[in-house]
Amino acid sequence: MTSRSHFPTVGILGAGQMARMLIEAATRLNIEIKLLSKSADESAALIANNVTVGDINNYSDLSVFALDTDVITFDLKEFPYENLKRLEKEGQVFRPQISAIEQLENSDFIKKTLIDANLPFQDNVANFERLLSVQAARSEHGQTVVYSVVQSKKIDEILDEVIAPAPNLSDAHASELQLITLKISELFDIHGVFTVDFFDLGNNKFLISQIKLGPTNSGLWTIDGATTSQFENHLRAILNLPLGSPKLLAPITVMVNVLGGQYLDMYKPFLHCMAHDPDLRIHLYGKEVKEGRKVGHVNISGNNLSDLLERAHHAADYLTGRITE
Amino acid sequence: MTSRSHFPTVGILGAGQMARMLIEAATRLNIEIKLLSKSADESAALIANNVTVGDINNYSDLSVFALDTDVITFDLKEFPYENLKRLEKEGQVFRPQISAIEQLENSDFIKKTLIDANLPFQDNVANFERLLSVQAARSEHGQTVVYSVVQSKKIDEILDEVIAPAPNLSDAHASELQLITLKISELFDIHGVFTVDFFDLGNNKFLISQIKLGPTNSGLWTIDGATTSQFENHLRAILNLPLGSPKLLAPITVMVNVLGGQYLDMYKPFLHCMAHDPDLRIHLYGKEVKEGRKVGHVNISGNNLSDLLERAHHAADYLTGRITE
Repeated sequence: MTSRSHFPTVGILGAGQMARMLIEAATRLNIEIKLLSKSADESAALIANNVTVGDINNYSDLSVFALDTDVITFDLKEFPYENLKRLEKEGQVFRPQISAIEQLENSDFIKKTLIDANLPFQDNVANFERLLSVQAARSEHGQTVVYSVVQSKKIDEILDEVIAPAPNLSDAHASELQLITLKISELFDIHGVFTVDFFDLGNNKFLISQIKLGPTNSGLWTIDGATTSQFENHLRAILNLPLGSPKLLAPITVMVNVLGGQYLDMYKPFLHCMAHDPDLRIHLYGKEVKEGRKVGHVNISGNNLSDLLERAHHAADYLTGRITE
Repeated sequence: MTSRSHFPTVGILGAGQMARMLIEAATRLNIEIKLLSKSADESAALIANNVTVGDINNYSDLSVFALDTDVITFDLKEFPYENLKRLEKEGQVFRPQISAIEQLENSDFIKKTLIDANLPFQDNVANFERLLSVQAARSEHGQTVVYSVVQSKKIDEILDEVIAPAPNLSDAHASELQLITLKISELFDIHGVFTVDFFDLGNNKFLISQIKLGPTNSGLWTIDGATTSQFENHLRAILNLPLGSPKLLAPITVMVNVLGGQYLDMYKPFLHCMAHDPDLRIHLYGKEVKEGRKVGHVNISGNNLSDLLERAHHAADYLTGRITE
């Protein structure tokens, strides 16, 4: 018998950077990850030690892969519902559950559920002041933890920057958004981590904008800025393990997205950024660089927001090639 | 061309928990690790995706393994010097260098070098007040970073507890020990991370006790307690990359060793500890549990030393089976 004997194995369908970061979190917990990847050079497949190359749309691939997993989770944009439901009927555990994923792709259902629960929802608002996001984790036992409210900024519909915690938000309003987030997890019976995006309309008015299951880009700051990352808490939640503390490690953490740009080989700009700023936490996903493709992110923590924003954006701009010094 | 094209590959000889934690640090940096392990179920071999099972004492195993590595580092207790020197002659880069490793196994040489440099050395002291340790990283370019002085406690010659930073040590004395540590790195031309242990004799008298190359148990707190861990800075240093900040993330971080004990299967006590204390950072190495064998460690950060010590020891005692509630 080894120390691994009753430690669970988590299957992940899809092998992008979210799967890669789940693997990083799994190692220290002694949780084994099994990956189903469409090719051997996907971001997570490059670092995983248990990879099956296969097609999620092929039921035989899926069912063979599932055999020795305790629970299966996802790093997918599109879900092969028919296959997943068939496998679920045969006893496979999926977290989040297939029903929750499907419900949350149905905007009419979301709208109706939120309105019935008296929660302020609108999926599209032309003129809002800023985006706020709240991330939480919930396990089958119903245990929940909720992270600080963060401020998000998008450029061309891609998340560009996150500030944790959101500046200029009263404790009372932060708590209000956190409570709405927890209520949403019950309404849709969500297991795992998830994120609720809010439009801040100003004058202390907030509207729910989106509900996203699994680890998200707006939670990437947690790797370096929180006691327990979104990835570790996702694993704990889907395995029904006690959840870890979501406490901030520093007064402020800033995350800035790194897109592929001028450099097909990012090694030299990577060196430059390390030399320029020893406080930077640079995360690269090993993906082939294409212009506009998300290839990494940087985190930086400290006390001074404008200083942190300047340093994080400098690094991201340099890595992308938008600036050369 | 992929984003990996000029990113280096590090070979590691040996596959214990230090190698495992080096792999964790390598992933986010997009640095590939290649492992030479004596068997497929060593701690690091369980999570690595590029493992060669082979014998370091066999020159052919070693030279084939070395072929596509940029630099080779170590997680070994005993070194096959003859093979290593032969491979070094053929152009293989080792970090730390074989010469430094060999010199630091020669206590007469250490004594002479330190005495010549006017540094206070003694390898065995019967009655000292406490052990202090200083960890630093040094790259080939000569860049160095030094971590805070920590206080270490051993039980039966095994490191049991580390407190970072060391309590009741003046800034002036901490700086003195850090400067001695940096001087030692020059004297022995050390590349990579290394640790210098000191006897604190009381009355502001300190003696150098030991110099250890590579990541050490007294630096395990850095994974959760410092901006850049010893593992990441080891990789950066041996690759001659700019080093990361060694700054503390919290006022105090405590590390306590977890030894194998009563539980062959550690899953249940692991759950208990997670439920008992959500702030705990539990690291398990996936090793077969044997009584007295190091199988993991816990880190916890905060403000109150006695509280942190109590919580970390409770977790370690529970995981070992010394206590059951």
